[in-house]
Amino acid sequence: MNEVSKTRDDVNDASPHQSSEKIQPLAQCPHVVIVGAGFGGLAAAQQLAQVAVRVTVLDQYNYHLFQPLLYQVATAGLSPANIAWPVRYILKRQKNARIIMARVTGMNLATKSLILKNHADIPYDYLVLATGARHSYFGRDEWAKYAPGIKTVADATMLRQKILLAFEKAEMEEDAEERKRLLTFIIIGGGPTGVEMAGAIAELARHSIVHDFQSIVPASARIILIEAGTRILASFHEKLSCHAKKALEKSGVEVMTNVRVEHLDQNGILTRDHKIESRNVIWAAGVKASDAGKWLGVGTDHNGRVLVNQSLNIASEDPLYKDIFVIGDTAAYVPQGKQYPLPGVAPVAKQMGCYAARTITARIRGEKGDQPFVYKDMGSMAMIGRNHAVADFKIAYCKKRMRMSGFFGWWIWSIAHVYFLIGLRNRFAVAMNWLWQYITRQRGARLITAEDQSRL
Amino acid sequence: MNEVSKTRDDVNDASPHQSSEKIQPLAQCPHVVIVGAGFGGLAAAQQLAQVAVRVTVLDQYNYHLFQPLLYQVATAGLSPANIAWPVRYILKRQKNARIIMARVTGMNLATKSLILKNHADIPYDYLVLATGARHSYFGRDEWAKYAPGIKTVADATMLRQKILLAFEKAEMEEDAEERKRLLTFIIIGGGPTGVEMAGAIAELARHSIVHDFQSIVPASARIILIEAGTRILASFHEKLSCHAKKALEKSGVEVMTNVRVEHLDQNGILTRDHKIESRNVIWAAGVKASDAGKWLGVGTDHNGRVLVNQSLNIASEDPLYKDIFVIGDTAAYVPQGKQYPLPGVAPVAKQMGCYAARTITARIRGEKGDQPFVYKDMGSMAMIGRNHAVADFKIAYCKKRMRMSGFFGWWIWSIAHVYFLIGLRNRFAVAMNWLWQYITRQRGARLITAEDQSRL
Repeated sequence: MNEVSKTRDDVNDASPHQSSEKIQPLAQCPHVVIVGAGFGGLAAAQQLAQVAVRVTVLDQYNYHLFQPLLYQVATAGLSPANIAWPVRYILKRQKNARIIMARVTGMNLATKSLILKNHADIPYDYLVLATGARHSYFGRDEWAKYAPGIKTVADATMLRQKILLAFEKAEMEEDAEERKRLLTFIIIGGGPTGVEMAGAIAELARHSIVHDFQSIVPASARIILIEAGTRILASFHEKLSCHAKKALEKSGVEVMTNVRVEHLDQNGILTRDHKIESRNVIWAAGVKASDAGKWLGVGTDHNGRVLVNQSLNIASEDPLYKDIFVIGDTAAYVPQGKQYPLPGVAPVAKQMGCYAARTITARIRGEKGDQPFVYKDMGSMAMIGRNHAVADFKIAYCKKRMRMSGFFGWWIWSIAHVYFLIGLRNRFAVAMNWLWQYITRQRGARLITAEDQSRL
Repeated sequence: MNEVSKTRDDVNDASPHQSSEKIQPLAQCPHVVIVGAGFGGLAAAQQLAQVAVRVTVLDQYNYHLFQPLLYQVATAGLSPANIAWPVRYILKRQKNARIIMARVTGMNLATKSLILKNHADIPYDYLVLATGARHSYFGRDEWAKYAPGIKTVADATMLRQKILLAFEKAEMEEDAEERKRLLTFIIIGGGPTGVEMAGAIAELARHSIVHDFQSIVPASARIILIEAGTRILASFHEKLSCHAKKALEKSGVEVMTNVRVEHLDQNGILTRDHKIESRNVIWAAGVKASDAGKWLGVGTDHNGRVLVNQSLNIASEDPLYKDIFVIGDTAAYVPQGKQYPLPGVAPVAKQMGCYAARTITARIRGEKGDQPFVYKDMGSMAMIGRNHAVADFKIAYCKKRMRMSGFFGWWIWSIAHVYFLIGLRNRFAVAMNWLWQYITRQRGARLITAEDQSRL
């Protein structure tokens, strides 16, 4: 029974080889604490695998989530486990890494330590903050309960439930007006997430479940994508935006641009010219960085992102901040000569994570002067629906941009997303799911799972 | 926009072929209402596919769940979507079936109708109650919050979270006693579910996550299976019980028989001779039938099961009850010459469902006198762990019993469970998951997903 209380340290102490090793004991190495096991944090941790440092990765979840495919969980195409992988498993071979599942509540700059909920403080020599972002309702936080966004696994399964329940409730509803409200889906925000959600809901309603109901015609559902700007996918080339709009409309999505939502509640939305009644409003319009700025007590931009310099350190002369890196969605880094910060996408976070790890390594080794961070833009992609995606990317070496849409873009999108998943198993599972979905037009995870009594 | 309010009826009305058909219009056929889309309810609905009746299947979930594999969701081996399938999808080709997702709150025997929550009453001509069972704590309902059971998808993901969190908390814990409590897993009930849970947790702790922690040694976890009776798997032959006990002990489970739990709370359990401290008590000891008995206002046995006669009708002369069938876990049917009711397992429910459907068909056709229900016992199986299962089944035609254990039993178990899953896709997904799990000893769904703030 004493076995239970035995720890790894006991095991190590018992080893006769321990004292004879000549390399620096791990305990005396500098301690790099990484908060957040998303794309940025994980990249930083992995980049430090061969460096003489102790790495501690903190996250409030036990898994790394492949967020670009989260919309497919919300639309019943994939299971959460297909796109999430335990951080412990990913880093199990990295001897210098320790993983802690905990929630950070603040920090003590003077003692160089992080304050955790229900756990002792964790001191650091170097700190990498990669804590990501949540939705932002532009100051209208009361909208959150009527227009859920999609950032976590729980968000996605909740949204899946909401979408599937809308059809179930419509099937039972006798009032035609209410049935109309239940079968109207409004997606606010015409960025990649909004476009992908709208396309996937259209596919669900018009193909996957089209023959499954007796009272309603699911294909008659209205799916409306609302964008405040002049075009959807504003970060892409105009031609691709135009193509995406046409493809969405062909698949049955109404695309409204130049429309700003002025009010929303459980009955639908209000814009300057329209009132659209709906029981299903989905938010894909804006994000707000995590609380890292508050922990640090430093200035942030209007999205709560911490302003960082070209070393990804806080833009301050105060020496307390010099060993703190802020990366990914939490950082606002405006490259020289540019007007806007880098976007909150996976490649930016990954490259920032690698950069922070390399800079920490250089500083430990006493190499002078940080190289500035340079973002290599590989391009971007968005899925519209079956056989349709847009891709806009740079070809390495020849520095040319390549733009693709339609079927070829769809292939590129699919291959890239399978490739970037972690683990052979998830790649295989996702590829098989997509193949099955492509052939049958069915979706494999149509589950309303919450035990919420109010759902019926 | 008017499209949205269009219903199937409108579509049908518009069809010129409707009136020229010579078969009896569906609306005039007898209405068979089936409550519950488990093994029993689904079998009844499918058996009625070619019969001139209107079938309505009611369930509070939108999916049919393959409960025998639910323990693998709870132990992070499978995703819920691997073992659950939308009822609408299963019955989509059955023209005479309508599916309603709703909660039954009671019934009106005089008007022959079911009372639903938030929906108009549903009248029936024939009623099949297949509403299943929940855990039973033998009158100690306060134990429910300390010792969760496993009957629904939400139960399973909650239990998965509890088990995985125990290791995460232990990793962070500095107090050796508390670490010991966190790494002690007590499973109460030595039936198939308890045995399968214990075996799977042992596999998880001793193989899947064994190298993933830095402070604790997961393999040192104590896993205790407690059975009040004289042996585990009491419904199997004694030899198989004995084999199961040895196999479990070999895989690291402590098996305690003749031990009755007298008290349990958040700190562990108390028996007559033992006090075992644990933060993880899992309930697999007893079930209680659903509320069908209350709706009917009839007598039940001590597990809340409705007493039925050999036609699976309520054992009463009252004509109000004559068109009501009670099947599966909700029914207590004692075959002639036997002492105990049939067990609450999938084959019993399936055969009862088919029987009820056949009897309804015969009564509609005016055939006289019901054939009594006869259960064909095909045998039973239980998984113990890698390469170990016990199987005890009858070989058709030669009427011999065959008992198997170990590797061969394990193959039989695996093939049978894949075979009985619904849909090629789920069979393939589960088989691939198991293959991967067998080769790597990893588990594919190690996710702590709930957004519960108190979890950390």
